[in-house]
Amino acid sequence: MEKQISNAVIKRLPRYYRYLGDLLENDVVRISSGELSSKMNVTASQIRQDLNNFGGFGQQGYGYNVEYLYEEIGKILGLEKKNNMVIIGAGNIGQALTNYTDFERRGFIIKGLFDNDVSKIGKRVRGIEIYKVDLLEEFIKKEDISIAAITVPKEYAPKIASDVVKWGVKAVWNFAPTDLLLPDDVLVENVHLAESLMRLSYRLNAKQRGDLL
Amino acid sequence: MEKQISNAVIKRLPRYYRYLGDLLENDVVRISSGELSSKMNVTASQIRQDLNNFGGFGQQGYGYNVEYLYEEIGKILGLEKKNNMVIIGAGNIGQALTNYTDFERRGFIIKGLFDNDVSKIGKRVRGIEIYKVDLLEEFIKKEDISIAAITVPKEYAPKIASDVVKWGVKAVWNFAPTDLLLPDDVLVENVHLAESLMRLSYRLNAKQRGDLL
Repeated sequence: MEKQISNAVIKRLPRYYRYLGDLLENDVVRISSGELSSKMNVTASQIRQDLNNFGGFGQQGYGYNVEYLYEEIGKILGLEKKNNMVIIGAGNIGQALTNYTDFERRGFIIKGLFDNDVSKIGKRVRGIEIYKVDLLEEFIKKEDISIAAITVPKEYAPKIASDVVKWGVKAVWNFAPTDLLLPDDVLVENVHLAESLMRLSYRLNAKQRGDLL
Repeated sequence: MEKQISNAVIKRLPRYYRYLGDLLENDVVRISSGELSSKMNVTASQIRQDLNNFGGFGQQGYGYNVEYLYEEIGKILGLEKKNNMVIIGAGNIGQALTNYTDFERRGFIIKGLFDNDVSKIGKRVRGIEIYKVDLLEEFIKKEDISIAAITVPKEYAPKIASDVVKWGVKAVWNFAPTDLLLPDDVLVENVHLAESLMRLSYRLNAKQRGDLL
């Protein structure tokens, strides 16, 4: 099956998943695209269009079965599989990610943290051990790691990212404030916190100047 | 001056700013849009077009003066002003944000952390005190806080966000995995980490299925 799903749709899918998860927690059994639309602030036709990319899932006059749709979107997102992860950099962000138990519930299994700081080696975060970076190559191969979160300072990020890719990692979740240059077949998702804060500041400033937003 | 700058441009501005900052650190005095283009993986005409929104800044045949352009983009982003911030939730993410000295360099001054956990009250992160949430209203008014970072669990986020807005906060940097419903004139920037990870997982899964990406 070959098809091209737009980035905009991919961006919205996790949001559908989150809303459906919230509905499930509140024991909602079914929902119309209209109700989902007003909750999510997306038009109903947008929702139908988005989900039609994957085959629909709704029934005319009935709406969506919340649990079924939640599970199907979970499958599309690859969440029914286990994805083994490492976190490189056991600083604040690395430890924060490790402490998010939500990731594990969704199949992202953090197998180890890695750091260069000898005072951290051997310690544990939520039971997960911090290892020396020297052990990373062997660990990635042995533990079948597909995702690496990079939370090291920006000057170390490009080298460690290209190393882990060489050792078999397929996807990089990059928190370092730099763009990684990696082979085209490597998936990269950037979380640039400073840029996010600057966008907020831009809008705050533009508003004070009286620009349209 | 009233003008409408597209979201796509606003998204790219902090990235220009970051690249120019890196160039400055490496003592680069000027750069052509062609060189900047190949570094940033954006077309040269895109760069010229983006910057023309704000008046250009380049000179035909000379290129851009790096320091000047860096400073001008900084002004557009509102970084020459001080923005006072609070962080609500002194957990891992809240502490990680507090430890980013980069934010302060760019004019984002974290004035205080707030938490409900009595064992945290009175402690300091990078010298910045953790206060009881009860003190937030007074603090926001006294310290002229314009930005609140929300790093509390999702069930507490909507209430605390609407409270801080009532007390005078103009911009919310939201890390809770929920959409905040706030008045239209409040600026919100969401950092949904779980959604970011799910997008990575989607693409990993789609690639394994053989979909086009």
